[in-house]
Amino acid sequence: VTNKDNESRPAVATSLQTSRRDGDVVVVEFTAGHRHNPFSMGRMAELTELLKQLDAEPDIGCIVLYGGLGRSFAAGGDLSEPSTFTGGSEIDGWIDKITDLYVAVAGIECPVVAAIDGYAIGLGLQVALCCDYRVGSTRAKLVMPEFRLGIACNFGAFLLERVVGRAVMQAMLFTCEDWSSDRAFKDGLLHRVAPTDDLLDEAVGDARRISSYTRAAVRGTRPRMNKPLIKGLEEVRRQGKVSHRRAFAAGEAQVRMRRILASDKAGN
Amino acid sequence: VTNKDNESRPAVATSLQTSRRDGDVVVVEFTAGHRHNPFSMGRMAELTELLKQLDAEPDIGCIVLYGGLGRSFAAGGDLSEPSTFTGGSEIDGWIDKITDLYVAVAGIECPVVAAIDGYAIGLGLQVALCCDYRVGSTRAKLVMPEFRLGIACNFGAFLLERVVGRAVMQAMLFTCEDWSSDRAFKDGLLHRVAPTDDLLDEAVGDARRISSYTRAAVRGTRPRMNKPLIKGLEEVRRQGKVSHRRAFAAGEAQVRMRRILASDKAGN
Amino acid sequence: VTNKDNESRPAVATSLQTSRRDGDVVVVEFTAGHRHNPFSMGRMAELTELLKQLDAEPDIGCIVLYGGLGRSFAAGGDLSEPSTFTGGSEIDGWIDKITDLYVAVAGIECPVVAAIDGYAIGLGLQVALCCDYRVGSTRAKLVMPEFRLGIACNFGAFLLERVVGRAVMQAMLFTCEDWSSDRAFKDGLLHRVAPTDDLLDEAVGDARRISSYTRAAVRGTRPRMNKPLIKGLEEVRRQGKVSHRRAFAAGEAQVRMRRILASDKAGN
Repeated sequence: VTNKDNESRPAVATSLQTSRRDGDVVVVEFTAGHRHNPFSMGRMAELTELLKQLDAEPDIGCIVLYGGLGRSFAAGGDLSEPSTFTGGSEIDGWIDKITDLYVAVAGIECPVVAAIDGYAIGLGLQVALCCDYRVGSTRAKLVMPEFRLGIACNFGAFLLERVVGRAVMQAMLFTCEDWSSDRAFKDGLLHRVAPTDDLLDEAVGDARRISSYTRAAVRGTRPRMNKPLIKGLEEVRRQGKVSHRRAFAAGEAQVRMRRILASDKAGN
Repeated sequence: VTNKDNESRPAVATSLQTSRRDGDVVVVEFTAGHRHNPFSMGRMAELTELLKQLDAEPDIGCIVLYGGLGRSFAAGGDLSEPSTFTGGSEIDGWIDKITDLYVAVAGIECPVVAAIDGYAIGLGLQVALCCDYRVGSTRAKLVMPEFRLGIACNFGAFLLERVVGRAVMQAMLFTCEDWSSDRAFKDGLLHRVAPTDDLLDEAVGDARRISSYTRAAVRGTRPRMNKPLIKGLEEVRRQGKVSHRRAFAAGEAQVRMRRILASDKAGN
Repeated sequence: VTNKDNESRPAVATSLQTSRRDGDVVVVEFTAGHRHNPFSMGRMAELTELLKQLDAEPDIGCIVLYGGLGRSFAAGGDLSEPSTFTGGSEIDGWIDKITDLYVAVAGIECPVVAAIDGYAIGLGLQVALCCDYRVGSTRAKLVMPEFRLGIACNFGAFLLERVVGRAVMQAMLFTCEDWSSDRAFKDGLLHRVAPTDDLLDEAVGDARRISSYTRAAVRGTRPRMNKPLIKGLEEVRRQGKVSHRRAFAAGEAQVRMRRILASDKAGN
């Protein structure tokens, strides 16, 4: 993973780029690699570290997560990693990287806005669900396809139930359908839908508004507001290791993942 | 309660019938008795036992609960039983039967779809709320009338708040109104509305899709997804015994129930 | 605060008036003072005490909270009090008064209906969220503006997430926008919208229906239905003291509050 485009902006990590907007707003862009932005364990660790660094900077009032122009927000985990898993201890490291990322998004004091174009799938949707405010473009598609992929979906079940309620959680998990931006807005998955061309500007506008509130008020509230969410994520961390070991030991998940990867390479 | 119709299908219990559809889907039909399918304690115990048996069968991927052609899903508990209660220990046995049934629906590993025609009232609606996916016909009516009947509604309050949120729970409990299929869909009580003639086929279609997911993924997720629900149901089991003893000791509940039973016999 | 209007009705407290409607319904009207009904600590304590008294009366079946004809339901706390806070122990007394009020609304056995005309802001909206049923007039405006005012919003975050879900909570807190009656109805903040002229009559009608249910059923359910809410409020009481001390010690909150108060005096 290298830093291919937009070299003029300061890069803090190989697969992420940050840029300042309007003083106290920072856009973190998921750059490099496939345009659907699968999240490798390396990228998860980088983003976790970056969020903690940005949170410690005294003049940043809001962070915007963005998949980049013409790119998906994040199309799940990088399947090439779990497709080789055998159901052993490598599962634990993977679950830890995932949980650490979610806990960082929800656990820092600085508010986080998600700007979602294209797909937000599985892990990508879960990152967005840990954010405070979710803006989607008209062509955004939100999907929780774990069951279809043959993977346990404990993080998805927990986060969806917590953020948009049990009924929507059940619908997403048990149908594995794509949620259009309209449906996602109706169901509370998106707070707002913006024209595709305006997505980043509008998300930055929302971030500027959030950044205009006093630091003491926002930072005195966010950790307590998110405490039950983080407590739940830590429970899923423990449970998820058990669930995923079972699913991967069964072997079906990897077969389905490799089939999807092969289909992607064939030009899908 | 005897097994009157459809003798060609294998009956596993006197008031329930099971039939296989498309290999790994099983339809459990509430047969016999009144067409609104009141749930006697006997039927509750039978369904609880049947669900556990079906869950243990290695080739069943999804269960559909169905009230039968031209019949209601389930119009609450059989009021002829509690109408004779006096507020003593008989309450505990009744609450245990009810709780055991809800815990079985939510607690087995196998997913459960509810196919709702006609009424889903009180206990009937609560069974549906323990399911993973709820399909209603256009003429479905969902009601939580406990307060109007003079009964405490701790199970209804808990399950509605958990599944569709506190605002909808408050509306159903404090108005006791009928929820039409449209309103039920809008409020998340139903995941989908189907034409009356297609209800069972569409619910079986949804069950087939669920059954197509890997067993390891679904069964590695469902118990954890439902753990907080079951924990809450067990709390209500304890509390419900106290609440219902109080309500039945007051005597008003039985008077209202007997009035409803008399009105039913008069041809209502 | 004196009792200026409607002297013919029995006044039980200086800033509150009660009146019987249709036998077993009591309307508690927030009278006297500014027409937007800011809640001073004195009024909070009076309402807390009054609710407990009414709950103990054997012939009251439902309470309606109402801001009065042509007046707001309640436009938040009286900013002239916290605007002088310095971040010390005076914060604790203020938080206790607020928490005691919320716990009284949710904790008594008697159901409570909110009849909302004009604004329900901050504390006012939080009082409404503790009620069982919320009726708004077409010109009702619901707002959670704490972040814009520079105040931590732990009560608002908790109550909104609990009552209408996390997505709506995030939208209200991070935008600080006004919710119109239509939007509030769609999002579950209001159970029903009534024409402005009919607001009180319709809310009293809903209260009469609630009052028609058996006392044993309703009072055997409400305390258990609200137990988790009250447990959460008690946690926020503890946390809120810390959060608010931090926000007020930073000093920005008071500056913003005094600016708003000055703008109000200038005729806003």
